[in-house]
Amino acid sequence: MLKKQGRLLSPSLVIHKTNNTITKILKGDIKILRKIAAYVVESGGKRVRPLFLYYLGKSFALPDKTLIEWGALLEIVHAASLLHDDVIDGAEERRAKPTGAKLFGNKQIILGGDHLLASGLKYLNGMGNSHAMEIFTDAIQSLTTAELLQMQELYNARATRATHASIVDGKTAVLFRAAGALVAVLRGETDYFASETACLGLSLGRFFQERDDYLDYFDAERLQKKGLQDFFNGSVTPPLFTLFERVTEREKKEILSAWRLMQNHETEAVILNLMARYSVRDHVLAGLTLSQETVFAQLESLPQGAPRDRMLLEFKKILAVHST
Amino acid sequence: MLKKQGRLLSPSLVIHKTNNTITKILKGDIKILRKIAAYVVESGGKRVRPLFLYYLGKSFALPDKTLIEWGALLEIVHAASLLHDDVIDGAEERRAKPTGAKLFGNKQIILGGDHLLASGLKYLNGMGNSHAMEIFTDAIQSLTTAELLQMQELYNARATRATHASIVDGKTAVLFRAAGALVAVLRGETDYFASETACLGLSLGRFFQERDDYLDYFDAERLQKKGLQDFFNGSVTPPLFTLFERVTEREKKEILSAWRLMQNHETEAVILNLMARYSVRDHVLAGLTLSQETVFAQLESLPQGAPRDRMLLEFKKILAVHST
Repeated sequence: MLKKQGRLLSPSLVIHKTNNTITKILKGDIKILRKIAAYVVESGGKRVRPLFLYYLGKSFALPDKTLIEWGALLEIVHAASLLHDDVIDGAEERRAKPTGAKLFGNKQIILGGDHLLASGLKYLNGMGNSHAMEIFTDAIQSLTTAELLQMQELYNARATRATHASIVDGKTAVLFRAAGALVAVLRGETDYFASETACLGLSLGRFFQERDDYLDYFDAERLQKKGLQDFFNGSVTPPLFTLFERVTEREKKEILSAWRLMQNHETEAVILNLMARYSVRDHVLAGLTLSQETVFAQLESLPQGAPRDRMLLEFKKILAVHST
Repeated sequence: MLKKQGRLLSPSLVIHKTNNTITKILKGDIKILRKIAAYVVESGGKRVRPLFLYYLGKSFALPDKTLIEWGALLEIVHAASLLHDDVIDGAEERRAKPTGAKLFGNKQIILGGDHLLASGLKYLNGMGNSHAMEIFTDAIQSLTTAELLQMQELYNARATRATHASIVDGKTAVLFRAAGALVAVLRGETDYFASETACLGLSLGRFFQERDDYLDYFDAERLQKKGLQDFFNGSVTPPLFTLFERVTEREKKEILSAWRLMQNHETEAVILNLMARYSVRDHVLAGLTLSQETVFAQLESLPQGAPRDRMLLEFKKILAVHST
């Protein structure tokens, strides 16, 4: 029988330990900071980044403690970015719950986000691994650059797929890539940003966003949000790229004028009808399925064993495209 | 004759080198980041933190390069905090120029501030000194905590001097203390947060804010801003503490009702008349003069030599209380 400390943690136990670590790192002297920390833990979502980091690390028999701590830090960086995002977008809901900005006000959330980053990086510094610090500060820099780029590209009918790919890499894939790079650091690789695990993280992160972009148009309920949010926020994502590439000039103008309207069933229907007429869903889904196969092939090529199998099982659920 | 690299830099040369280093650290891939970096350099103020760090470090014969780099990083953290502050306060002007938030919009400035912090910390990590990283992340954490605390205390007629002191230490003194702690690190001291140079920084930072709080009521032109801004923003600072301690209950109510009015000459006159009636200026100035003497005595006790003398000369100008 395995010794207790050698046992692989279940996903719910990984999440539980991640949450405890987040609480420990964010403990603050003043009330509002404790409230924001509690909000970050409670509104935690699926914790897909810490789960990926944990099972990836365990595939190489790395120690639980560091994996959980770095996973918590990935979530803290992610949460800080969401807090500021929701101020910027004026969003009132995320994951079917009120946003931090809605609950605590924009001013406190701007400072709260800054405090999250500072607390996370201070804790990380105490862990004494300067490669990890490089990975995290690099990721935060990418996140903010990509968000600024995304903001510049809003409502741009001439947006390109190349720019969109940069935004996805900087904004979403970066933290998955960071998880892979962190594992490479622990494995003693010197070129950790170009390691196989970092590349795996990058693929997974890109697929994660590609799936999100698909679901936004074709199955938003699975994301616990209203459909076509990307469209009405002015983001041009793969479904809309495909549509733009297929419609007539007259129809394109129709789409652009829908951008100026509020989100309602009528304008939604206009877009979805055009998407149906040009078989956008099938086209995007074909690409998405291919990406999914590639990612799972990469995951399957990890060293055989319980961690890899558990990761496959869990991520097949988390990253399913079709409702079951 | 001294060799060129041994020569003490003049204040304007320190500022010039600091600005170049800021530009180098903040170089960004996208246009808006370059604009924000240029804004940070151009709107730079007196660069009192890098000047303090430089002459303090030179008093102990420390190398220029590290002092200038760390000084630039102190300014980057300071600038990031000001960018977010101006979003939070909805401020349109700072140092008689439009704020970043006014020029580039709140959304871009929130992300721009995040990017400044990430770029600064990434550069710092590359310098390979984990003590310096601890000092910087600790300072950012203190800054955000103190600003949240300050926000909670706005328009609080029962605010205490003790809470105000915590806010000043966390918000203003912290970066001067950090400069002192950084010098202690370079001198090889292990208890750098409690070093003599860190304590000197703390005193200087506290005095810097105390002077600011005084000038806000009694000589705001020297700060290049309108008078009584602290009052109309709802901050309770030493002049108002003193006034609250001296007025009748009826007059206190009069002050509180002025809080609800917009800033205009009439309401300003009401407050300044009360200040005059209760000799608030003389009282606050007496305390301020005492702090100033203490700080300059501490500066004079630094090792004798050109760096100390240049610091004294420069800071007597920068921190003068009376117009000359």
